[in-house]
Amino acid sequence: MSDEAPSRRATVRRHPERGRYDRATIDAILDEGLVCHLAFVSDDHPVTIPTMYVRDGDRVIVHGSAAARMTRTLATGLPVCLTVTLLDGVVFARTANNHSMNYRSAVLLGTTTAVTDADEKLAAMRALVERIAPGRWAQVREPSPKEMKATTILELPIEEASAKVRTGPPLDDEDDLSMPVWAGVVPLAIAPGEPIPDPALRDGIDPAHDIENFLRRFDR
Amino acid sequence: MSDEAPSRRATVRRHPERGRYDRATIDAILDEGLVCHLAFVSDDHPVTIPTMYVRDGDRVIVHGSAAARMTRTLATGLPVCLTVTLLDGVVFARTANNHSMNYRSAVLLGTTTAVTDADEKLAAMRALVERIAPGRWAQVREPSPKEMKATTILELPIEEASAKVRTGPPLDDEDDLSMPVWAGVVPLAIAPGEPIPDPALRDGIDPAHDIENFLRRFDR
Repeated sequence: MSDEAPSRRATVRRHPERGRYDRATIDAILDEGLVCHLAFVSDDHPVTIPTMYVRDGDRVIVHGSAAARMTRTLATGLPVCLTVTLLDGVVFARTANNHSMNYRSAVLLGTTTAVTDADEKLAAMRALVERIAPGRWAQVREPSPKEMKATTILELPIEEASAKVRTGPPLDDEDDLSMPVWAGVVPLAIAPGEPIPDPALRDGIDPAHDIENFLRRFDR
Repeated sequence: MSDEAPSRRATVRRHPERGRYDRATIDAILDEGLVCHLAFVSDDHPVTIPTMYVRDGDRVIVHGSAAARMTRTLATGLPVCLTVTLLDGVVFARTANNHSMNYRSAVLLGTTTAVTDADEKLAAMRALVERIAPGRWAQVREPSPKEMKATTILELPIEEASAKVRTGPPLDDEDDLSMPVWAGVVPLAIAPGEPIPDPALRDGIDPAHDIENFLRRFDR
């Protein structure tokens, strides 16, 4: 993929200087996020579902219950907009209108396809688990054929993709810079708390390297 | 609003036990979030925009440049789906398929309307700023008439609204509970870093009570 916008509708038009179309930027956002917002049209009305996802090479994978409306609808191959937004800070300006957020967002437009091959479905589940906590797949019980039958896996190619990135201080006008009010950025990031064991956990089991790998995602 | 789902399409169908329809739950989610995902349909394709918002009584307010496609389109009164998602933790199960997230999400369906009265627009801007950092409006320069002309304010009533909440440990089957793998929840929350002053900030200005009010949002 070049660094040009892949289509007119995928072009960042408001603040075009914040638009990014290179895969390195897009992939980094997709790989850092934990939840995406998946939008589709149902009965002429937009619907958005927040859901787990994983980037796997040139596609993004989401999963859901085979019985759920969302997955049943999307398995038919529906146009979607998949958005991952990372909030990096609040930008405090000297003027009301220049307040802003620092963020990195990635948007994928396209059509979802159901993954139907049993081995490919299992590989997608593995990617979902390993992506959250590398090393976990080897420790947990793999899905049974019955569980996989009840699970729909959807994939969306990373083709019509864009990112939008705002960084840095507020952009106040020269005339406002002398105002006696604090201006700047308060950085925000997701921070993990202490792991809370399942009350049903067997005695003497501590979090292993997989959970440590998960926690390492949040090191700044 | 009663605690019943306000419409069929606003009913939480997958894991209905996680559905909440009372305004206290919905408002608490809307008041904690900083960014919403606003979905609408453009040329038959769903489009999602992450954007700042504020709940103001029985409505949610968003704003944007009057020149932007999103705001121009939405000002015509378009069906939207506004979603606020708070990620509270990752749920580590003993089995691959039972991995999950703890989250609270609020979804509003409806139609946006442009606020056109100048005083009402200014009041909405004030709500947006005060909501982020109570006490800030009095310190910053108010928008000029020209700035307000270049700003579109949109409102969405909190009517067809629902929330979905997952809390607590993984839900593994009895048969899997004896597996020798750690299971539980790693809580996640947004944490602020040290405020970074604008390089153009006048000497000797420290963050005031408004910034402290903002930071207090994240006290656990």
